Amino acid sequence: MTTTPSAATVDGPASPTSQARARLRPVSLGDVRITSGLWHERGEANRLASIPNGLQRLHEAGNLRNLDIAAGLAQGEAEGPVFADSDVYKWLEAAAWEYARTGDEKLLADQLSVTETVARAQAEDGYIDSVVQIRENGQRYRDRPHGHEHYVAGHLLQAAVAQVRCTGRRDLLEVAIRLADHLVATFGPHAPADVDGHPVVEMALVELFRETGTQAYLDLAQYFVETRGHGVMASYGREPTYFSDRVPVREATTVEGHAVRAVYLAAGAADVATETGDAELLSALATQYASMERGKQYITGGLGARWDGEAFGDPFELPTDHGYAETCAAIGGVQWAWRMLLATGEARYADQIERMLFNGFLAGVSLSGTEYFYVNPLQLRVDAHAESERSPANGRRGWFACACCPPNIMRMFSSLSAHVATTTDDGVQIHQYANGSIAAGGLRLDVETAYPWDGRVEVTVREAPSTPVELAFRIPAWAGGATLDGEPVEAGDYARISRTFGEGDRLVLDLPMQPRLTQADERVDAVRGCVTIERGPLVYALEQSDQAGDAPVDDLRIVPGAVFEVEHRPDLLGGVSVVRTTGRSASPPPSAAPSPYPAVDTTSPNGRTASGGDVTLVAIPYYAWANRGPQPMRVWIPTA
Amino acid sequence: MTTTPSAATVDGPASPTSQARARLRPVSLGDVRITSGLWHERGEANRLASIPNGLQRLHEAGNLRNLDIAAGLAQGEAEGPVFADSDVYKWLEAAAWEYARTGDEKLLADQLSVTETVARAQAEDGYIDSVVQIRENGQRYRDRPHGHEHYVAGHLLQAAVAQVRCTGRRDLLEVAIRLADHLVATFGPHAPADVDGHPVVEMALVELFRETGTQAYLDLAQYFVETRGHGVMASYGREPTYFSDRVPVREATTVEGHAVRAVYLAAGAADVATETGDAELLSALATQYASMERGKQYITGGLGARWDGEAFGDPFELPTDHGYAETCAAIGGVQWAWRMLLATGEARYADQIERMLFNGFLAGVSLSGTEYFYVNPLQLRVDAHAESERSPANGRRGWFACACCPPNIMRMFSSLSAHVATTTDDGVQIHQYANGSIAAGGLRLDVETAYPWDGRVEVTVREAPSTPVELAFRIPAWAGGATLDGEPVEAGDYARISRTFGEGDRLVLDLPMQPRLTQADERVDAVRGCVTIERGPLVYALEQSDQAGDAPVDDLRIVPGAVFEVEHRPDLLGGVSVVRTTGRSASPPPSAAPSPYPAVDTTSPNGRTASGGDVTLVAIPYYAWANRGPQPMRVWIPTA
Repeated sequence: MTTTPSAATVDGPASPTSQARARLRPVSLGDVRITSGLWHERGEANRLASIPNGLQRLHEAGNLRNLDIAAGLAQGEAEGPVFADSDVYKWLEAAAWEYARTGDEKLLADQLSVTETVARAQAEDGYIDSVVQIRENGQRYRDRPHGHEHYVAGHLLQAAVAQVRCTGRRDLLEVAIRLADHLVATFGPHAPADVDGHPVVEMALVELFRETGTQAYLDLAQYFVETRGHGVMASYGREPTYFSDRVPVREATTVEGHAVRAVYLAAGAADVATETGDAELLSALATQYASMERGKQYITGGLGARWDGEAFGDPFELPTDHGYAETCAAIGGVQWAWRMLLATGEARYADQIERMLFNGFLAGVSLSGTEYFYVNPLQLRVDAHAESERSPANGRRGWFACACCPPNIMRMFSSLSAHVATTTDDGVQIHQYANGSIAAGGLRLDVETAYPWDGRVEVTVREAPSTPVELAFRIPAWAGGATLDGEPVEAGDYARISRTFGEGDRLVLDLPMQPRLTQADERVDAVRGCVTIERGPLVYALEQSDQAGDAPVDDLRIVPGAVFEVEHRPDLLGGVSVVRTTGRSASPPPSAAPSPYPAVDTTSPNGRTASGGDVTLVAIPYYAWANRGPQPMRVWIPTA
Repeated sequence: MTTTPSAATVDGPASPTSQARARLRPVSLGDVRITSGLWHERGEANRLASIPNGLQRLHEAGNLRNLDIAAGLAQGEAEGPVFADSDVYKWLEAAAWEYARTGDEKLLADQLSVTETVARAQAEDGYIDSVVQIRENGQRYRDRPHGHEHYVAGHLLQAAVAQVRCTGRRDLLEVAIRLADHLVATFGPHAPADVDGHPVVEMALVELFRETGTQAYLDLAQYFVETRGHGVMASYGREPTYFSDRVPVREATTVEGHAVRAVYLAAGAADVATETGDAELLSALATQYASMERGKQYITGGLGARWDGEAFGDPFELPTDHGYAETCAAIGGVQWAWRMLLATGEARYADQIERMLFNGFLAGVSLSGTEYFYVNPLQLRVDAHAESERSPANGRRGWFACACCPPNIMRMFSSLSAHVATTTDDGVQIHQYANGSIAAGGLRLDVETAYPWDGRVEVTVREAPSTPVELAFRIPAWAGGATLDGEPVEAGDYARISRTFGEGDRLVLDLPMQPRLTQADERVDAVRGCVTIERGPLVYALEQSDQAGDAPVDDLRIVPGAVFEVEHRPDLLGGVSVVRTTGRSASPPPSAAPSPYPAVDTTSPNGRTASGGDVTLVAIPYYAWANRGPQPMRVWIPTA
């Protein structure tokens, strides 16, 4: 075993250099400990179930064997999609971050063994993509729009950076450097203009630059960001829009096309802008982010309205029943928002991370940590049917033929604590609330909270410098009426306390946790006349199991203005607070209505509306749905 | 030239045998003449532009060359999708029906020349599918779910039947018989259970049975219908649902999966049920049809909510902005409804044909007859972007890489007059209203009407038997208040007059044409709080070009109860009646709203609603949209 760094000094994902134009600096991965509560529990499921299971799945699905075949150590055809290797790399990245948190030697041994498998498959000149090596007879980069070779490379680079940061081992880093050098030799200003159909290598090259100091990697990332957007990528019936190739990143005003590609590209561009100090590029990215948030994001933080092309819809096209909201897109959204937060220090991006993590992301994995959703719609209808493997009507699945989401979830969980706090020269910013401890900027803090079930957050100072320091608390935009030490603080910004702290000092943040009814911009046709229940950072949903009586969820209506009742149920769904309120059930439709499109009777209102009497609606957090089998569910509830 | 039958004795598509269990009998193709008005005009565009253009496109896209390559007369790779031949056959079918109507010798020569090309490509044993012949090195039926070989065969059979009926030439029929005999030898109870991923061969085999009297063709069609539905077809991430293979046709209670496949299968099953007298199967199909109509059909008659899988959605999943409603699905819907009408004699199916023809189908082709929509959503948003070739945001297109829709439109137009009337032993039923003449059941009738612009239909008897005969007029379900010869008649059924008619007798049907506001079953979340304007059989839409002021269509609201004003505009869009009514424009959204998901303010209604003052809304028939370039449009209008 070589040097295993203490987690306390491990850089997490996206760690800008000291020269970067960043307002905030990440803290080291081990400087934040989450020791109990929701994120701890879900993180344990990730550690104990998802990650070991994931390695098993990679064996079973043939991903690791592909690498052996490419290395000449096994015979056969390549299994799985062209980007099969990337699932291995995402698993390796997850294993690395997880090792930093736990020091689990088995996990270290496993990742080094997988790393060996990877290293053996690498070609002499640094190229590695086992599926292409096997299927294409040595021909590389034949299908730039769909070939995913840079995408696969990017995930290798990210895993290598995580591995060296978390284990001190350079095994995968050496592979990554040879691969990156091959990319630098093959692509760039000296070669014909070319980019990969699926971004991610941009983020990865910047991180490899940060780790190695090799300027050529940053330059290549910048080149890829700038080269994209000239409308040359069109293939298999897909327009350049699909590939984020219609408009140069610097000129784009919104996000479009394949959602994961779009947000990975934006995150990579944010890395480039941060490291190169490119204020214009950063400003374009902020405009794009705002456009996405305003008209192309579900209330769960979910991104990508369309199944076809796994793509962003047009502005305000946000269908609930057949929405897509791929789990990977929520993860990419967090990555983009995190980089924007570091660059700008604006609380809105931390709000976004919270919304995506607690809802669109967390819904992507079962409470057991072993079953996944690829898509995360906001409604499952009565009598819904499954047409494809990834249909939510199938329920959660143990793995997918296209298995991008599960290992992406793993690496997000394993690096989640890196997103909790940052530092500046002035002090420490707390962005996310979880029970545990934070050590940063000379402060050592204990955080006690039952968040997100309770809005009270007690911070106790255990160690502090003898000079004044600023402690900043994010007050979520939803938290109107919040107080810090009893004083009202403004929602949607940081509440800052600057003083010389002493050991034992306590600060109490109180975020109001009464349930809220939320509506949507009325251009979101899909949810006209509906509201959602939110409580704290959580979006709630009605799931069939929890409703008394036999009214299908689709026939329930909510009564705005009715009282809410909150009950914490430790026994339910791993422990959740349920919200109850008054609703009505619509009368059943006429059994043999002559037409689903009746003429408007201007003398009386629509006869079906809510004539069925009062019922109690029971809402659970959206993330916890479909843990009792697939069943009707809806987030947006029509008003009575 | 061999015998060219007079059009007056030409069987149209779907002509049950005299032994079939059918309530109604089709009239001969030439017995109905449409001589002016909307269908005549659109039919002329089909004849003069679409069909000649189509042949040119088939040459350019390589479809005809594929056949030459398969025949060994040309070299090269096959072009286009695996079902490329089927586009040739649909064009041949259109050309045949069109020849029956016009006797155009050029059209006959062209179709015989194409028929020769087809015949040369046929293998010794009757098999023909040029793309498979070229690409698969003689290996057939390798990919049953996606290979489309029976689908291609089915279209050949349909074209051959049309050709012999319309031209008397057996050229293509001989090819079809050899192909059908090959199918009979290869598939069926004597071979492993197997069906094609894409139905159509069922309809085609029944028609070939009707034309040739060969029982084996009917038996094979029946076998394919009964063999399907055992959940064996799953491929490339598609579940059996996609292929209509989850439930046997006889047991299914709804339609699901790929919409065109589902309705083609149902139409074929209806043919089988009709010829075999299978009342149980017919009853199952009626149940499925009713389920489709109630919860899986757009108000335009459009079928298939989902882009992915071109599939039916779950019940009441009918998004407007990103709906699919493939043009081919509307055509398949007409085929199914027509067979149900023949079998049952129920007016509802003729109502359905009217709805689909005037809206979901007719929107699929430009007024010029040269540009097409593959998908027909009910809304195009402001700032919509195109991501794929078939996106309506691209506007109409001259052809598609997957060109199933254009020649399907051609054959529908060319055989449209066959759907106007039927006979029974008692008399004649008029299902669709168009200016022209009908000769059937011993009656010769002139029909004078400006339908669908005007609801007055005058029928003058030119010839009649000397015995009593029943004349039945369909009174559409939307036509409450209709009168026949001044007497009130019930909507949603046939109004029947039985007497001895004399030459010069006149009957006047009056269908009320005041515009109607229509709402949807409130489980259709996508259009909650919205209404449509309908007038007669036409669904109306707001298109941006017609609206005064600069309010985007998405911000317009309608005022239920406001008066309608109708004006016929011969100068507009080939001549349409526009409907004007009062609306409001919503106030523009706050320029920098903090969140698209504001909390509900229970003290005041949603601030954006319709505070922008009165405006006049101008609606055009939906079918005519996007003839002035792609632009914002919506069928469902939120109420103020």
